Amino acid sequence: MSDPVITLAKALIQRQSVTPEDAGCQQMLNQRLAALGFNIESLFFTDTLNTWARKGTQSPHFCFAGHTDVVPTGPEKNWLHPPFSGLIADGMLHGRGAADMKGSLAAMIVATERFVSAYPDHKGSISFLLTSDEEGPFVNGTTRVIDTLEARGEKIDMCLVGEPSSRHELGDVVKNGRRGSLTGFLTVKGIQGHVAYPHLAENPIHLSAPALAELSQTQWDQGNEFFPATSFQVSNINGGTGAGNVIPGELEIQFNFRFSTEVTYQQLQQRVIDIVEKYGLSYELSWIVNGLPFLTEHGPLVDATIAAVKHVTGRDTVLETSGGTSDGRFIAQTGAKVIELGPRNDTIHKVDECVSCDDLIALADIYEHILIQLLT
Amino acid sequence: MSDPVITLAKALIQRQSVTPEDAGCQQMLNQRLAALGFNIESLFFTDTLNTWARKGTQSPHFCFAGHTDVVPTGPEKNWLHPPFSGLIADGMLHGRGAADMKGSLAAMIVATERFVSAYPDHKGSISFLLTSDEEGPFVNGTTRVIDTLEARGEKIDMCLVGEPSSRHELGDVVKNGRRGSLTGFLTVKGIQGHVAYPHLAENPIHLSAPALAELSQTQWDQGNEFFPATSFQVSNINGGTGAGNVIPGELEIQFNFRFSTEVTYQQLQQRVIDIVEKYGLSYELSWIVNGLPFLTEHGPLVDATIAAVKHVTGRDTVLETSGGTSDGRFIAQTGAKVIELGPRNDTIHKVDECVSCDDLIALADIYEHILIQLLT
Ligand SMILES: [Zn+2]
Ligand SMILES: [Zn+2]
Repeated sequence: MSDPVITLAKALIQRQSVTPEDAGCQQMLNQRLAALGFNIESLFFTDTLNTWARKGTQSPHFCFAGHTDVVPTGPEKNWLHPPFSGLIADGMLHGRGAADMKGSLAAMIVATERFVSAYPDHKGSISFLLTSDEEGPFVNGTTRVIDTLEARGEKIDMCLVGEPSSRHELGDVVKNGRRGSLTGFLTVKGIQGHVAYPHLAENPIHLSAPALAELSQTQWDQGNEFFPATSFQVSNINGGTGAGNVIPGELEIQFNFRFSTEVTYQQLQQRVIDIVEKYGLSYELSWIVNGLPFLTEHGPLVDATIAAVKHVTGRDTVLETSGGTSDGRFIAQTGAKVIELGPRNDTIHKVDECVSCDDLIALADIYEHILIQLLT
Repeated sequence: MSDPVITLAKALIQRQSVTPEDAGCQQMLNQRLAALGFNIESLFFTDTLNTWARKGTQSPHFCFAGHTDVVPTGPEKNWLHPPFSGLIADGMLHGRGAADMKGSLAAMIVATERFVSAYPDHKGSISFLLTSDEEGPFVNGTTRVIDTLEARGEKIDMCLVGEPSSRHELGDVVKNGRRGSLTGFLTVKGIQGHVAYPHLAENPIHLSAPALAELSQTQWDQGNEFFPATSFQVSNINGGTGAGNVIPGELEIQFNFRFSTEVTYQQLQQRVIDIVEKYGLSYELSWIVNGLPFLTEHGPLVDATIAAVKHVTGRDTVLETSGGTSDGRFIAQTGAKVIELGPRNDTIHKVDECVSCDDLIALADIYEHILIQLLT
C-alpha cells in the first residue's frame, strides 16, 4: 500500500507517543506543513507539546484540529500485531492510534497538500492545531493554545476535529456538537454513633436516600433536535467505617451531568441544591465544570461536510452530539463553528486498534472536498 | 480498703487478661469455689478458657455468669493510673476491667461465700459460668459452654449476668432482656457503563435509592413495654470505581436491625426482601443473626433482684432492654430466666475505667440477698 496517507499514518503509529509524549510526531507533520508555506509555532506547556501552524491570514479561517498522543496499549502480548508496528493486514492498518487519531492527521496533511497544490490561490487561510494531551488531563493542550490565540485576538471561523466519529461506515456519523459535562461532589453530614443507640446518631445514608431517589428520577430537560435529554448519573457513593455496628457520620456522593444546550450548568447546580435543601440535608457541595456544551447548526461548515461525505462515499451523514467530551469544546467556546469527522471508532482505546486503509484514503478525499467547498 | 470484695477485685485487675487471655483469673476464682464444695470443670475451646462450676444438683438452679477477659487498654500513657494496677484513689478502684466486669466477679464470689457459710443447707444449686471471650468474637466462650450443658441435659433455671447495668447509681437499672441483632449484606446489581452512554448501563445506585428510602422510613414495629421499637440502620454503603465517568455495576449495602420481641428475624428478612423486590432490584442478600432477643418478665428472679436492690440501696430499679448484646442471649435461649445487674457503666471500655469501692461492696450485698430470696 503506497498511498501517501497510509505511509504517513504508518510513520506516525511507529512513534510511541503515549500521553503526554509527542515522540516527534508533530515535527514530522510540521515539516510537511512548512513545505506548504505554513508558519509554524511550537507551544510547549509544562509537559505538553502543541503546534499552531497557519497558512495565510485571510478569512474565512479554517482549522484542522487533532492530537498526536495515544492512550496506553496495556500488555503488548495481548495484541495480535505489535501496537507500534503500523502493520497492514487484510486491508487494515494496525496499531495504537490508527483510528484515534493518527490516521485522521495523515489524511488532513495529505488533503491539505493536494488542495494547496491544486488551488495555490485559494481564499481564506488554513491552520493546524495539534496537541499531545488530548487523552490526558486537558490542561496543557488545546485549551492553552486557544488561550494564546484569544490573547492575541486570533479567531478560528470553522474547525474540523479529526476524532473518529464514524459508527459503522466512514462518514455515517458526524458530530456537530457535544454535551456539556458537570461533576458534583456532595458530602451529606450526619452524626456518627453506635447502631444500638440510633437516637443519639443521625444516619446520613437514611437522610440522603429520598433526595437521591428524587435526583435519580428527575427529568432535567427533554433535549432537543440535536441533543438527547440531559442525564444525571451517580458515579460513586461511599459511607461507613467498615464496621457493622457504627452509624457513619458522613456520606460522600459523586455525580455527573451530561447536559444539553437546553439548560445551563448554573441551572443544574441550583436544581440540585433545591432538591438537597428540600430534604433538609446538612451538606457540602463542590463542582467541576468539565466542559460546556456546543452545537454547530446547519451552515457552510456542516453543509460542506455533508456534501463531501456524500460526494466521496455516497452516504447520507447523520449529525449527532452523543458520546464523551472532546477538545472541540474548547475551540467552540471562542465562537468557532466546530464539527468532528474521522474514521470508525469501534476499536479505539482497545486492544488491536486498527483502521481501514481504504477509509483513510477516502477520508483524505472528504477533507479535501471540504476545503474545496469552503476555500475556493 | 480491706473488704474482701475489693481485695479480690484488685487481684483480678492485676492479671492482664485481654481477650482471649484469662491470665489465671479463673484459677483464682475456682480455688475459692472449690473450697466451698463446688465441682469445677475447665472447658478450653481453641483459644478460650471457660469454667463451669456447680454446687449441688437440685432445683432451682441459680447461675452467676461473667467474663474474666477485658478489652485492650490503648496507650497506657493515656491512663491516669496504670491500667493493671488496681490502684485505689478517692474511693474508686482503678483499672481495665474494674467495672466490666472483674468487680462483679469478686462480688459474686464473696456473696456466694457468705451465703453458703450462712445457709449451708440452702435449697437448689448454685453455679458459675465464666468465660474469657465475652469481649471477643463470641465463638469459643459462653455459647460453647451452653452447648456442652445442653448436650448433657443440664439446665439453668435462673441466671444473673454481672454486666455493668447501672447508669447513674448502683442498681438504678437492671437489664431484663436484650434486643436481637440481625445484619444484612445487600448487593444490588446493575450494568456498568460510561456516564456518557447511560442508555447502555443501569445504575444500581439510582435503582436502589427508592428502596433505601423506604427501608429507612419503615416502622418495623412499635416495640412493647420492655423494648423500644425495632430499628434499622445502614452501616456501610459503597458503589463506584472511584472514576468519575464510570457508572458502577454494583452497589453494596450493609445494614443492621436491633429488634424487639414483637418481630422475628425471619419476618424482618421477609419484609426487606419484599421491599427490595417491590422495586424490581436484581440483588444478592445474605444475613447474619448476631443474636436473638430475650426477655425475662416479672417472676421470682426479677422480683428478687428488685427487692434486693431496694433492700441494700433503697432504690427502685428500672427494668430495661436497651444497649448492645451480651452473653445473656446465649443463656436465655436455653429457656433460663436471665437478668443483668452490675456496677455503673460510665467508664467501661474507656481510658481510666474505674468503679466505686462502696458500690462493689454493696453489690456483693445485693447478690447475697438475691441468693437468700431464691434459695432459702
Ligand atoms: Zn481522540
Ligand atoms: Zn462485659
